[in-house]
Amino acid sequence: MKFVSFQSADGVKLGVVTDKGIVDVRAIAEKVGLNAPSTIEEVIATGETAINQIQQVLSQSKEFIDEAEITYAPAIQKPGKIICAGANYLAHVAESNINVPEFPIYFPKYQSSLAAHNEAIVPPSISKQIDYEVELVAVIGKQAKNVSEEDALDYVFGYSVGNDLSARELQFRGLQWMYGKAIDKFAPIGPYLVTADEITDPQDLNIKCWVNEDLRQSSNTKHMIFPIAEMISDLSKIMTLEPGDVLFTGTPEGVILGREDKVWLKAGDEIVCEVEGVGRLVNRLA
Amino acid sequence: MKFVSFQSADGVKLGVVTDKGIVDVRAIAEKVGLNAPSTIEEVIATGETAINQIQQVLSQSKEFIDEAEITYAPAIQKPGKIICAGANYLAHVAESNINVPEFPIYFPKYQSSLAAHNEAIVPPSISKQIDYEVELVAVIGKQAKNVSEEDALDYVFGYSVGNDLSARELQFRGLQWMYGKAIDKFAPIGPYLVTADEITDPQDLNIKCWVNEDLRQSSNTKHMIFPIAEMISDLSKIMTLEPGDVLFTGTPEGVILGREDKVWLKAGDEIVCEVEGVGRLVNRLA
Repeated sequence: MKFVSFQSADGVKLGVVTDKGIVDVRAIAEKVGLNAPSTIEEVIATGETAINQIQQVLSQSKEFIDEAEITYAPAIQKPGKIICAGANYLAHVAESNINVPEFPIYFPKYQSSLAAHNEAIVPPSISKQIDYEVELVAVIGKQAKNVSEEDALDYVFGYSVGNDLSARELQFRGLQWMYGKAIDKFAPIGPYLVTADEITDPQDLNIKCWVNEDLRQSSNTKHMIFPIAEMISDLSKIMTLEPGDVLFTGTPEGVILGREDKVWLKAGDEIVCEVEGVGRLVNRLA
Repeated sequence: MKFVSFQSADGVKLGVVTDKGIVDVRAIAEKVGLNAPSTIEEVIATGETAINQIQQVLSQSKEFIDEAEITYAPAIQKPGKIICAGANYLAHVAESNINVPEFPIYFPKYQSSLAAHNEAIVPPSISKQIDYEVELVAVIGKQAKNVSEEDALDYVFGYSVGNDLSARELQFRGLQWMYGKAIDKFAPIGPYLVTADEITDPQDLNIKCWVNEDLRQSSNTKHMIFPIAEMISDLSKIMTLEPGDVLFTGTPEGVILGREDKVWLKAGDEIVCEVEGVGRLVNRLA
């Protein structure tokens, strides 16, 4: 199932993308007298029950919204945690001039960092070195503590596309990267949250990024140094992962930081991030 | 005003500490027919309105709970962000063998890291190098974006005492500290959340930590490299700070990491963290 969250006069609404258009889950459920969740957080929290309710709603829906007409919200709006993996593709590690990590490297973003597909990103006035990073994003579906690598993917609700926007001079002003990462609107996620059952192998997806139609990043998630299952297991050894928690899984090579010319992103630039079978996330710098 | 959150059969309740004992705000408000907030998050979100309501409740309360009888909850339970300053006291920077930072250094903890006063802390089985760090904790009271240093303290709702528990071999396994910091229960905060008006100068408070009654840390918040106002202003240049967001402000010298003997914390050890006028936070390692 492919979820989309979109803006309405009553706040953010939950939609499902179908061949005929988007189904407004709550509106249709009320019309046909069915129970159904109202937000993506409710879907994730109630899992199979929610999916079954929504399938009934879909089977009875006769109204579809044209996707061109919606204003997207971030694919998830209230994650408890946003954890980002850094230096997780070998060729990106090389271009970043850091050593190959022995263990996964994590840093944070926050709810205030979220942005939607098509949303304009306003960078902080103190940064001139804005860079893109296309990433596959995994969203946790079940509470996970001390889970094995073998079982870890069972704890994933679904996947989305993220852009781990970075302000490089702020990221490297000191020992910890957070100040150049946890910036307002620097974590666009979307357009969709695709349930895990629709992704045959999250470690074999083409992943690409364009700036103003110029292809900058092109790799495959099989090149992750630490696969998603390993990171979930690793994290779950020290913390409880909760339904809705978000994991950015790292970016491949091709970022501006690794280029000779280092022409940083500027106002008006359009960044397109794409992960095969998951979606195509577009944002423009304001 | 001195707030305390405590456990009850109906979930976490909001209390105010008075000379006669703790006032159960909601219970008394209902009894005397007044409106009042139910949680510390509601108090912070509604600010002066909430404080005024509570003052009326306090003036009519004839029932007081003995503080010895309560089971504490973390002084705040649902902060949107927990941001921790690292390397923010000169003598601690020296003992940690890192360079004096030019800019504040931040790393994250999460809601799952929270623990209460008197709560037993269960360390992750993969760490043997558990260390303490007493810290003054500031809680944001109003949305803050691009605020000046001069105005920054106006955005603080109040203060608490925190222990930035750390697993040193995990903190230093790679470039980013998060894995040794954002551990379940490794951010005890409490016992109280003291409103800012009760703290004359947050940059002139004695700060101490004992392990099994042995004094390990003893300094004053005036020795912070980056004062609280500077950090709030600095953070607000890149992100929106929201009511309830938590800032751990760094620890002074005296942690195990900086000692020659390096006898790490072990099961049964009692850690007492104290900040003058704010409170005394006690936790035992399970």
